[in-house]
Amino acid sequence: MPELLDSAIDEELRTFFTEARIRAGAYGAHYAALWESIEQQSSGGKRVRPRLVWSAYRGFGGADRAMATRVALAFELLHTAFLIHDDLIDRDTVRRGAPNVAGRFAARALEHGADERASAVWAETAAVLAGDLALSRAHREIAMLPIPAERREALLDILDRAVFISAAGELADVTGSLRGTTPALEAVLSTLEQKTAVYSFEAPLAAGAVLAGAGPEIVSALCRFGRLVGVAFQITDDVLGVFGDPAITGKSASADLREGKRTALIAHAATTAAWPRIAERLGDPALDEDAAAELRAALLECGAREAATALAEEHVTLARYELDSAELPAELRVELHEFAQRAMERVR
Amino acid sequence: MPELLDSAIDEELRTFFTEARIRAGAYGAHYAALWESIEQQSSGGKRVRPRLVWSAYRGFGGADRAMATRVALAFELLHTAFLIHDDLIDRDTVRRGAPNVAGRFAARALEHGADERASAVWAETAAVLAGDLALSRAHREIAMLPIPAERREALLDILDRAVFISAAGELADVTGSLRGTTPALEAVLSTLEQKTAVYSFEAPLAAGAVLAGAGPEIVSALCRFGRLVGVAFQITDDVLGVFGDPAITGKSASADLREGKRTALIAHAATTAAWPRIAERLGDPALDEDAAAELRAALLECGAREAATALAEEHVTLARYELDSAELPAELRVELHEFAQRAMERVR
Repeated sequence: MPELLDSAIDEELRTFFTEARIRAGAYGAHYAALWESIEQQSSGGKRVRPRLVWSAYRGFGGADRAMATRVALAFELLHTAFLIHDDLIDRDTVRRGAPNVAGRFAARALEHGADERASAVWAETAAVLAGDLALSRAHREIAMLPIPAERREALLDILDRAVFISAAGELADVTGSLRGTTPALEAVLSTLEQKTAVYSFEAPLAAGAVLAGAGPEIVSALCRFGRLVGVAFQITDDVLGVFGDPAITGKSASADLREGKRTALIAHAATTAAWPRIAERLGDPALDEDAAAELRAALLECGAREAATALAEEHVTLARYELDSAELPAELRVELHEFAQRAMERVR
Repeated sequence: MPELLDSAIDEELRTFFTEARIRAGAYGAHYAALWESIEQQSSGGKRVRPRLVWSAYRGFGGADRAMATRVALAFELLHTAFLIHDDLIDRDTVRRGAPNVAGRFAARALEHGADERASAVWAETAAVLAGDLALSRAHREIAMLPIPAERREALLDILDRAVFISAAGELADVTGSLRGTTPALEAVLSTLEQKTAVYSFEAPLAAGAVLAGAGPEIVSALCRFGRLVGVAFQITDDVLGVFGDPAITGKSASADLREGKRTALIAHAATTAAWPRIAERLGDPALDEDAAAELRAALLECGAREAATALAEEHVTLARYELDSAELPAELRVELHEFAQRAMERVR
């Protein structure tokens, strides 16, 4: 069933971007290329958000696949917008191993004879605008749903909350990491929840459920489940970012260490005697592979890996408890239990 | 009457931002400060867009002031979002003589002990997020209007067109100015139309008219009027940017020359024998006041000022022709004629 949804989402994205590129072509080749870069940015993901929309919608008896696909598309485009603006903030030019919007436009500028400085401005402009356009489309997709006002407004509230809280999380993440102080676990977890769990897990589940007509109490339970499981997934991602196999995770196992990313792993390490030794090298952009391996060994030895994994497990346990306490349709309950379980299986 | 509307808009903005700041406070003082900086960015403008929404709405017999205020608020917040992201792209930290969102957050970061690099990242993050939040609220304001679906969807289409075309114009403006070639008049005018006239003049007029129930033909005429008068205003602004009294325009009369801004003035100068002499100094960031005065004299002498002013007048004439050809309510026609006239009176 997820495969069927994936193809529906891919088809919807393809149709939308084809129309957008044609429409953009009237305003010049660069603008069409900008839309193409948004399309490329939106492809290659795992479609977590569309799947959650679809699971919840179908789970509550929703049968209008086209309608669910539009809501799923909205959350996929919201995700695309956030990735693009997150990369802009982090000054990254690569995403999932390929040039991102900024990377593509920097290259395009050089091809058109721009110098380095001009190329940087092109790239930044493209990233600002691409994110704005994807964000606008996410809003429009929900706003134009031909469903009763009350239900559409509930979906707009979910979207509003997702945008509001994600921005809070992004700001907290950036200001926190620049302050240079030791990350406290509580701050790390609330940032994970705000920056990612709400818009990626809570909101898509809530939207699917509301679209199918689920009541407020059960939607609240799904929201709590989404936040908990979302935090578990992020903790696991961060553990894999340091200890995972780059061939499987698709990212360097030293990148997070070089960046000094503030994770649950690091917050735990900061409470141990090993911290001064770890803090000394963490966040060093010049960290070589040997030093990264030493850091990794220190994080293992001081119990940080074990503590982070246990923390993820606790979140999954609490998430699963929400599933059992709520009056969920049986099939959806099974599906979400399996989904929660996957947060753990990846790291154990 | 415009004064009454101004106070209604100010009141609506105040209420909205007060709620947002309280809501944001739950996510930390920095996030509340971010909302405060959006509020500051949205104050001090001339409220051109709200006034146009209101003129068109009232002109077509609209009587629900609260509803019109919400639409006006949406366009004011769209404008705020575009200003913030435009400043981000231009790397400006000052707007209307005061620190903008980035400027405020750079200072805030330094107060919190951040170094120069960290302060720049804070500032950029704040500008990205502030624009996203204002843009999202503009969408939400229209999407939540309690009006019949057909009318709300027509308003959403107007908003969608405004966002789509403004992004095209912003991209064309940046890529054009970086290419370093001589600006052609046609490209300058279409960029003015796309980047500013559509979202600032066409869309607010169309939105007010549609909200009041005006028919598609008359809305199209208003759109044409809006684009023409919008281009006239921009040409005039650019002339004033070079020849105006800084005490009245509120901006330095050398800034556009130092920046090498591609205006109708410059596009005309590029077709005259004076161009090599002008091109030599134009866009020099180190241009002093004497050199700026010389450039100004050269632009006057080669006929660029006269040509740009005549071009603005032509646009006003065409705009007024649209007013006389359309079946407009008499009072609205008079009001819009006066509005068009103002585009000229500022520069003559």
